[in-house]
Amino acid sequence: MPGQRGQRWHDRRTSIVDAAARLFAERGYHATGTAELCEAVGLGKGSLYYYVESKENLLYLIHDRVMSQVLELATRISEMDEPAGERLRQLGREQIAVIAAYPDHVWVFLHEHRALTGERARRFTASRRQYERRIEKILTDGVRSGEFAIADIRIAALAWLGMHNYTYLWYQPSEALTVERLAAEYYALFTDGIRAPGARPPAGRPGQGRPAPR
Amino acid sequence: MPGQRGQRWHDRRTSIVDAAARLFAERGYHATGTAELCEAVGLGKGSLYYYVESKENLLYLIHDRVMSQVLELATRISEMDEPAGERLRQLGREQIAVIAAYPDHVWVFLHEHRALTGERARRFTASRRQYERRIEKILTDGVRSGEFAIADIRIAALAWLGMHNYTYLWYQPSEALTVERLAAEYYALFTDGIRAPGARPPAGRPGQGRPAPR
Repeated sequence: MPGQRGQRWHDRRTSIVDAAARLFAERGYHATGTAELCEAVGLGKGSLYYYVESKENLLYLIHDRVMSQVLELATRISEMDEPAGERLRQLGREQIAVIAAYPDHVWVFLHEHRALTGERARRFTASRRQYERRIEKILTDGVRSGEFAIADIRIAALAWLGMHNYTYLWYQPSEALTVERLAAEYYALFTDGIRAPGARPPAGRPGQGRPAPR
Repeated sequence: MPGQRGQRWHDRRTSIVDAAARLFAERGYHATGTAELCEAVGLGKGSLYYYVESKENLLYLIHDRVMSQVLELATRISEMDEPAGERLRQLGREQIAVIAAYPDHVWVFLHEHRALTGERARRFTASRRQYERRIEKILTDGVRSGEFAIADIRIAALAWLGMHNYTYLWYQPSEALTVERLAAEYYALFTDGIRAPGARPPAGRPGQGRPAPR
């Protein structure tokens, strides 16, 4: 969203944010000095801060570069006029695609977000919560429409997030495992579970949750 | 496992490892200096390294303190003479209990493991892989016994791990959400999915995975 600064300023800032994400992911936020940042982007300290304001703001911008996309996608998809299952399927695919496209940014914002303070920390937490609410909306819509049976929407949303976000630790897109295939597998797991059709839970065990689907 | 050093040495080392986990989780591994470590445990530098060898080894010991327990549990549970579903249920509960009991250690080893080098990095990766194999064994046993229907065992194991491990980011045990309850919800989600009994996937959509259970 270019404001008074103009498109060129914003493009330059984005390339600085991406270079910083790479550096922070490699060396850690605290361990990366301003001198290294300046060298990586080919700017002096004054010019660097003209674009990014401060090192902490740079960390916030790395987070925002991913989160703003993810949140926009989630908002659009969660409000689509489609069955909840279809919306959940699409959101899963987009979520994995973003994680695969921005491995450094995701690494940095999952690992270093505690370095944010004050207003930036507040905005970080708020955008995360907003994202969770989009997932919760899809799940709630699905329960209302009779597509889903969910004992606890919040826990289910966090389980879904865990399953998808955790891919940042191991997943690299390949022909053998494309974003589409991984997302389809996760969708099938999350929607239908692993219980074989017709199999029943072991008799007499407590805490099994809902009865097996008939 | 006390060796030549004796139990007292090992107990002291464990308390150093726990104090360091707290510090590293708060400030980051790289940003924490030897002086801070010494102050936190009340030892001089020479005494500190008598117990932990080096700062990198301390990081390894933090990882090992959690992973050795988790791996022992997973090995024991995966080999139990119980239905696969029951073993998976027990493993999920133990996994969440360990994460809840060692939040600092888990934070440190998920975030700082890339600082390990050489033999320690190799052992870290190997123990992680061993743990994944225990989960894969339970899932494979369940497919063989007819309890589970799973398209891709490795992806299912990683999905299970993501769901459970991601709790380190948000979960704190409480009366409202005990380890037992969270584990039971996750077990129900992973086993039966969220699809309502009788609900069918939207017609004509590709990539929906297995058909809905009957």
